[in-house]
Amino acid sequence: MSTGSGTSPNAARRSDASRRAILRAAFDLVGEVGYAKLSIEGIAARAGVGKQTIYRWWPSKGAVLFDAFLMLSEDSGGSPALPDTGDLRADLVAVLRATVEELNDPRYDEPMRALNTEIAHDPELARTYLQRLERPMRELKKDRLRSAQRAGELPSDLDLDVAVDLIWGPLLNRWMLRGGELTGDYAERVVVAALDGLRPRGGAVG
Amino acid sequence: MSTGSGTSPNAARRSDASRRAILRAAFDLVGEVGYAKLSIEGIAARAGVGKQTIYRWWPSKGAVLFDAFLMLSEDSGGSPALPDTGDLRADLVAVLRATVEELNDPRYDEPMRALNTEIAHDPELARTYLQRLERPMRELKKDRLRSAQRAGELPSDLDLDVAVDLIWGPLLNRWMLRGGELTGDYAERVVVAALDGLRPRGGAVG
Repeated sequence: MSTGSGTSPNAARRSDASRRAILRAAFDLVGEVGYAKLSIEGIAARAGVGKQTIYRWWPSKGAVLFDAFLMLSEDSGGSPALPDTGDLRADLVAVLRATVEELNDPRYDEPMRALNTEIAHDPELARTYLQRLERPMRELKKDRLRSAQRAGELPSDLDLDVAVDLIWGPLLNRWMLRGGELTGDYAERVVVAALDGLRPRGGAVG
Repeated sequence: MSTGSGTSPNAARRSDASRRAILRAAFDLVGEVGYAKLSIEGIAARAGVGKQTIYRWWPSKGAVLFDAFLMLSEDSGGSPALPDTGDLRADLVAVLRATVEELNDPRYDEPMRALNTEIAHDPELARTYLQRLERPMRELKKDRLRSAQRAGELPSDLDLDVAVDLIWGPLLNRWMLRGGELTGDYAERVVVAALDGLRPRGGAVG
């Protein structure tokens, strides 16, 4: 049946459409029923494919969900660069406020929660996540900080990994552990505290 | 059979011993087999009690595990105050280095991971956790920061909740999401960055 060169264009198109339908179904479904009740059967039913089609491509529901996140990230143009208006503080506040809105949106909250707890328990998935999603996103954050270094807003010897953790860590930790309300105002206070530090600053500096 | 005043002293002692054995078993077992494979049956077998004894006191394995953490925290003298040598930076570095050692110890890593992911998925457990464990621990952290405020090391109008999140959030987030190696050196760099801020500081201040 093969055309000789592997898969025919039509088959490849059908296959890609099935793949996307499965990933979309997994993402939507985990938001509705939660990760514990997410099943390959459920995803297959929602996507209108057979269970075997899913098992042919993915070993587990965790693997499907991970690829769903990857597809979503690629569909939104890969990971877009952070805004760079020349005002680091304003740009970070804008980015973190947008993150707060996303984390407060039930359509994203449950799937991201599911992915994050899978990572917490699965070191292999965590490695894949780091390599394919976390590192690329982290590089974009560091690019914005590097631009601030060039503009003299940040010191040139800053530890950029610690800086990224200091800016984004508090928000993500509060979200995951439900430690308090996630508001745009909280995001702004974190950015200001991270940039200025907790200790008193002297006269007019930097 | 009752003595009229409720439970007899002997029965109460036996009951307390069973309770402690169950909680100890739950904590040890989750560290060995992980949360997914933790079962009421397994805990009962390890503790040498019947399954029904456990179900009489707890509705789920998550509830057992939570009480196990609470017992551990109470056994270690409740939550001890943070060290206060008068040098905030040194004290925080010591505390966070100790936390890193604990998080890197498999005996604690898996049970704490299990508790944290339960919280991430169970808003009701999260509320109980906040009230009985997180808030009391947070107050101890804030007490240390208040002492630093009185000593002039921190400004008197500091947002203490944001400060706690800024100091502890990056570490906990890196641990949960396995974002990188957790070392004492990393803990120290986070403390310094949180206190001094990312922006350059001017001359000799504070």
